[in-house]
Amino acid sequence: MAVTLRALLAVCLGLSVLPPTRAQTPAPASAIDAALAEDIVIGSRVLAEFGVLDGFGHVSARSPTNPNHFLMSRSLAPALVTADDIMEFDLDGNAVDARGRSVFLERFIHSEIYRARPEVMSVVHTHSPGVIPFGVSKVPLQAMFHNAAFLAAGAPVWDIRKEFGETNMLVSDPARGKSLAQMLSDKWVVLMRGHGDVTVGPTVKMAVFRAYYTDVDAKLQSQAIALGGDVNYLTPGEGAKADAINFAVIDRIWNLWKMRVAPGLAK
Amino acid sequence: MAVTLRALLAVCLGLSVLPPTRAQTPAPASAIDAALAEDIVIGSRVLAEFGVLDGFGHVSARSPTNPNHFLMSRSLAPALVTADDIMEFDLDGNAVDARGRSVFLERFIHSEIYRARPEVMSVVHTHSPGVIPFGVSKVPLQAMFHNAAFLAAGAPVWDIRKEFGETNMLVSDPARGKSLAQMLSDKWVVLMRGHGDVTVGPTVKMAVFRAYYTDVDAKLQSQAIALGGDVNYLTPGEGAKADAINFAVIDRIWNLWKMRVAPGLAK
Amino acid sequence: MAVTLRALLAVCLGLSVLPPTRAQTPAPASAIDAALAEDIVIGSRVLAEFGVLDGFGHVSARSPTNPNHFLMSRSLAPALVTADDIMEFDLDGNAVDARGRSVFLERFIHSEIYRARPEVMSVVHTHSPGVIPFGVSKVPLQAMFHNAAFLAAGAPVWDIRKEFGETNMLVSDPARGKSLAQMLSDKWVVLMRGHGDVTVGPTVKMAVFRAYYTDVDAKLQSQAIALGGDVNYLTPGEGAKADAINFAVIDRIWNLWKMRVAPGLAK
Amino acid sequence: MAVTLRALLAVCLGLSVLPPTRAQTPAPASAIDAALAEDIVIGSRVLAEFGVLDGFGHVSARSPTNPNHFLMSRSLAPALVTADDIMEFDLDGNAVDARGRSVFLERFIHSEIYRARPEVMSVVHTHSPGVIPFGVSKVPLQAMFHNAAFLAAGAPVWDIRKEFGETNMLVSDPARGKSLAQMLSDKWVVLMRGHGDVTVGPTVKMAVFRAYYTDVDAKLQSQAIALGGDVNYLTPGEGAKADAINFAVIDRIWNLWKMRVAPGLAK
Repeated sequence: MAVTLRALLAVCLGLSVLPPTRAQTPAPASAIDAALAEDIVIGSRVLAEFGVLDGFGHVSARSPTNPNHFLMSRSLAPALVTADDIMEFDLDGNAVDARGRSVFLERFIHSEIYRARPEVMSVVHTHSPGVIPFGVSKVPLQAMFHNAAFLAAGAPVWDIRKEFGETNMLVSDPARGKSLAQMLSDKWVVLMRGHGDVTVGPTVKMAVFRAYYTDVDAKLQSQAIALGGDVNYLTPGEGAKADAINFAVIDRIWNLWKMRVAPGLAK
Repeated sequence: MAVTLRALLAVCLGLSVLPPTRAQTPAPASAIDAALAEDIVIGSRVLAEFGVLDGFGHVSARSPTNPNHFLMSRSLAPALVTADDIMEFDLDGNAVDARGRSVFLERFIHSEIYRARPEVMSVVHTHSPGVIPFGVSKVPLQAMFHNAAFLAAGAPVWDIRKEFGETNMLVSDPARGKSLAQMLSDKWVVLMRGHGDVTVGPTVKMAVFRAYYTDVDAKLQSQAIALGGDVNYLTPGEGAKADAINFAVIDRIWNLWKMRVAPGLAK
Repeated sequence: MAVTLRALLAVCLGLSVLPPTRAQTPAPASAIDAALAEDIVIGSRVLAEFGVLDGFGHVSARSPTNPNHFLMSRSLAPALVTADDIMEFDLDGNAVDARGRSVFLERFIHSEIYRARPEVMSVVHTHSPGVIPFGVSKVPLQAMFHNAAFLAAGAPVWDIRKEFGETNMLVSDPARGKSLAQMLSDKWVVLMRGHGDVTVGPTVKMAVFRAYYTDVDAKLQSQAIALGGDVNYLTPGEGAKADAINFAVIDRIWNLWKMRVAPGLAK
Repeated sequence: MAVTLRALLAVCLGLSVLPPTRAQTPAPASAIDAALAEDIVIGSRVLAEFGVLDGFGHVSARSPTNPNHFLMSRSLAPALVTADDIMEFDLDGNAVDARGRSVFLERFIHSEIYRARPEVMSVVHTHSPGVIPFGVSKVPLQAMFHNAAFLAAGAPVWDIRKEFGETNMLVSDPARGKSLAQMLSDKWVVLMRGHGDVTVGPTVKMAVFRAYYTDVDAKLQSQAIALGGDVNYLTPGEGAKADAINFAVIDRIWNLWKMRVAPGLAK
């Protein structure tokens, strides 16, 4: 009976038959940091819950014990990721201990950004419906409001065709990852023409927060443009100051998100 | 068994593991009016349920016993607010009995509006996705239909940059709150550039109703403008008459909302 | 236990604490046709479920036994209507047996259309978000696709201000109802400036179907116009032929809707 | 008790009282391939779940044992289709073993495409809200991103009025089906003016994937056009290469979809 009700609870959550999150199962015999794995799980499911991700996209974190390694899920829809699915990779995109698990073709997005940006601790790749129109347009994505303040620093567009010609559109090798990282430069967001975006941050929470609000901001900017006339965006100065506040208040929304996608883990 | 099923009910409601509402727990030993606290809880959760609020924003009410005090939640995502989270503040934004609880940075939105507008009994602050485009545009928000009739009186835009230069965008001190209250003037709604809006009313129900329909109206106005040509808005005369009807019928939608977010409290 | 699980089922349905539908309670000692009352209940809840109605709007049916009477709910949010809430009215809008129940201010929409259009057996009034922009615009609503074929006959806009000046926007007396019915003329849909729309049909199912697809069609037409250039609408000839098909296939979608909002009643 | 909880699980899934899927009932004494029927069931429910289908539209598959036969549901809303509803038809649209079941008026969409395109193994017909605006516009639907890469080959618009004059808009006989198949030509998607679209593929999964991403792509293209200026679409060369990747990764999203609409069948 208890088991049946637990299944029922999971089903009612809207993500249907959620696999258990880590805290509900015996800890794997692994060197992977449990709290960090949990953040990756929460972040993946949150972005799926809000439609920023569908069956594709991924969230990663730099290893806290080895800055030349990073953690990300095996190849799996983000809504289904559990802590047991998290694998460890080196900066060439090689799995440390693959055990036959299939890996994401686009892990080089992550490896090359971790290589180029030592202070970045988390990377998120999405096919966010808000940003795709901006990735194929000449209209730059800008900061509409303070929760998306990080966009005031600029959000460049990377067009894979410029350097690599007609491709399958994927960042499926180190060279493409390096080119993307160069376009990201010192920003927090880079758009990928005909594909999606990448957001980065000093924590998983901030990278996920930025992926979420980049999508929200893009939709709001489209609407503001459709009204006609000038749009009064945040200035870079406002953006820097307001983004500092986002760091201060992030747990307020993170705790809400956690309750929605993994109530068993929320305090 | 009973406990498990109660948890299950809460989970099925879509807000996942809702904390209990006041009526389901022993009343706190507090001077805070229970019915008013319940309205704040319902209002907060309703606006979260419909996407007018996400993890941020807040609903407050003037104290019925002390017009120089007001009630609002400790710093918490609105979907998670319970009656036990409601605190009391004076018009300088000081908590009457903080007991170590963290408070909203932007409580000065509320304190300064209560100071400037004696007849206002409730204030709502949102990052409503409908209104943000209007806050950064030169197109004024207007009343599209009778449920948003209160907008026919006008909805000014407050730009924090005009008086305070490049800031973190927050109304985080009394001076900013006072400036915002001056822009609100005698209206029911003020938009905040790059941030959101504030709605006010003679009851919590009306302030929440206005926050909800301001968001709906803004989205409808965007669509009407996109059709091209002139838009036939409500006149101020129509707005005043139709808003009187909103007062008369508000319980019809409030009871529906209450059933959605707190069925245990609905008759 | 059984009772608790039944409550749980209702909660999981998304309309939270749904009052029981007629079939789940003893039949009221009433002259009101049970099958017709059930259609009104299903239709009200379906339109609420899909956002065509929020807390306001109503569905009515002409009495099958007295063509000068019609049936509609007491004043209540449509998602909460049960068969026990259905009342009977004459064509002056007087309740036959009020028993102290409150009635809709706008019942004159219904009474005057039943008076003017003998073949109409059901009337639906909504604040449909799709149609409100068309009600305040000079762009006529047209038929985008075959499910909205009934719009090819035309959908006039009634502006209450033309005949009645600055009002509270409501059809709250027979004179306003008569004026609205005249603008509807022999069509199936009339838009109300700054308010919503009315759809009519030979059955409750068809009037509800038309309310639903009028909303869908309006949103699609907005999108087609935004693409730029000419739009190739259904001709009146196509509309008449395609609408005949809608009559033939309506049970396919009605049965689906019934399962969503009242699974206990669906076969 | 167990039965009641199973019903409850189904209800919580959002499709309310889902009829059982094939694997949960005794296998019918039928020649219909069980795995293929399951794909049709999953595909139908997925497209309903995401709003690509409402009460109308259908998914079919060519018979694996007889290339001149195909499988599709009896006339039923796609969200309600079970394996027991799947029937077999010949290429003239005749049911092999009707047993009194009602059939779709538009089965000729399927029969004539299977006749004209021997390599096509699955056909999906939708009234997708994304594509309807493009079907009545002169703006061609194009590939916005790699998941919709198959659109880079072109998506022609079929206008039934050109060959057949003012009709009921339905593909209700072989001649109309043949005309539609000719417009589809060697492409993967054809739009139907004032009606919807048809997508085809080498498997049910791919045809459903294309129906889903055609809808997503259309909405994104509308948004990109609304931003103003040139849009940088996928080239035909990029489209062909990227579509090959979609074949490789389709199980990632298919497994997610299966868990949402039929958790009992997902591994």
